[in-house]
Amino acid sequence: MAAPKIRMHVPDALHKGQTVHLTREQSHYLFGVMRLNPGDPVYIFNGRDGEWRAEVIETGRRGGMLSVRAASGPQQLPPDLWLLFAPIKKARTDFIVEKATEMGAARILPVTTEFTNSERINRERLQQHAVEAAEQCGGTYVPDVADLARLDRLLADWPSDRRLMFCDEALVGARTSLMSAPPAAKWAVLIGPEGGFSAPERERLKSAPFVTPVSLGPRILRADTAAVAALTLWQSMLGDW
Amino acid sequence: MAAPKIRMHVPDALHKGQTVHLTREQSHYLFGVMRLNPGDPVYIFNGRDGEWRAEVIETGRRGGMLSVRAASGPQQLPPDLWLLFAPIKKARTDFIVEKATEMGAARILPVTTEFTNSERINRERLQQHAVEAAEQCGGTYVPDVADLARLDRLLADWPSDRRLMFCDEALVGARTSLMSAPPAAKWAVLIGPEGGFSAPERERLKSAPFVTPVSLGPRILRADTAAVAALTLWQSMLGDW
Repeated sequence: MAAPKIRMHVPDALHKGQTVHLTREQSHYLFGVMRLNPGDPVYIFNGRDGEWRAEVIETGRRGGMLSVRAASGPQQLPPDLWLLFAPIKKARTDFIVEKATEMGAARILPVTTEFTNSERINRERLQQHAVEAAEQCGGTYVPDVADLARLDRLLADWPSDRRLMFCDEALVGARTSLMSAPPAAKWAVLIGPEGGFSAPERERLKSAPFVTPVSLGPRILRADTAAVAALTLWQSMLGDW
Repeated sequence: MAAPKIRMHVPDALHKGQTVHLTREQSHYLFGVMRLNPGDPVYIFNGRDGEWRAEVIETGRRGGMLSVRAASGPQQLPPDLWLLFAPIKKARTDFIVEKATEMGAARILPVTTEFTNSERINRERLQQHAVEAAEQCGGTYVPDVADLARLDRLLADWPSDRRLMFCDEALVGARTSLMSAPPAAKWAVLIGPEGGFSAPERERLKSAPFVTPVSLGPRILRADTAAVAALTLWQSMLGDW
């Protein structure tokens, strides 16, 4: 089994011959933890310019340097799919962001609902989780994590060209209706909080013209399981799988 | 929002009027943690007789008693679907068992492959995880967790009436071929280890007459994400969703 590629997200624009200055954290990881030496390869991406093979040209615990050698992979763009979810316990919220990145969501929007368990998120930490998930899953795209917003306000101001797949736990026994939804290039998937949606929220969602309700089966899924299941349904039927 | 039902798996046969003696752990949970009193309801299931509403008739930190009052839900039987997976780090192995239970797998089989990260499992602990996941997801069925087995031996002795969905990470870009697989009532889903399958393993799988390879999309998924995604694909196309 070949050693896995060391992949790292950097903010710099990337082109051949470019020098990349590493942060203290990046240097600690590459030279302190992974024990790289000058000449060793590191694969880098910035979310816009694809993946590049770079080489270590200077090591140092506080700040080393890489030199960009050659393009090693194209820039990927996931489909224009948002994931809306109600934050839950910290570890499972982290999992949802990690999994949404792996599954190819373009944007992650934490929302508060009537029964939301958590009223606060650390947006920067979640964004960093998305970066690390992209580093590990071989992706070159990092979804943007939005600030926490109220679901009712998002729905009131919903863009007319984006459909919303509403994962309705009360829809037991129904087959997915994704294939019969009106065609749309832009989509979003909405996962409820652990306590489910309130009756007024469900009514509002079901009556909105941009909403497609789908069933995630006869068993109750935890929010993080539901996020992966919903993104799988969408990607396999309408996305890039 | 109504208080969530307290659900508990018990080994006893269940019928109206039955008395259930609680273990020390169950008593601690019901009376020490949840602070139930005589007359409070507990919903119990044994994996065979559906869900029943029982009432506390005796409390006690070391052993209380419930009395079974009335049936509250039917026995569910998931489709005859096995999940085969290569154990990974402890926390993520636990997640896979939890998620396979939520997703409605009938049997969970940890397997070792050439690149398996972990050569040992604690079968009893994983079985207990499946029980707890069933308690929390509202299920009445608990999948059986098998002992760790070698994948090559399982394949050599594969039952002729069961098809195997092989989640092939090298199959990038291909659409799922589940719908064109020969009809079968019994299925299994195979998820690889983090290092992927070896070339001989992949060849062997691809050439087996009972195997249907499917793609899980263009991004690399962690094993726990892949398990949920694969079970979603199967359940939504051939299962009980």
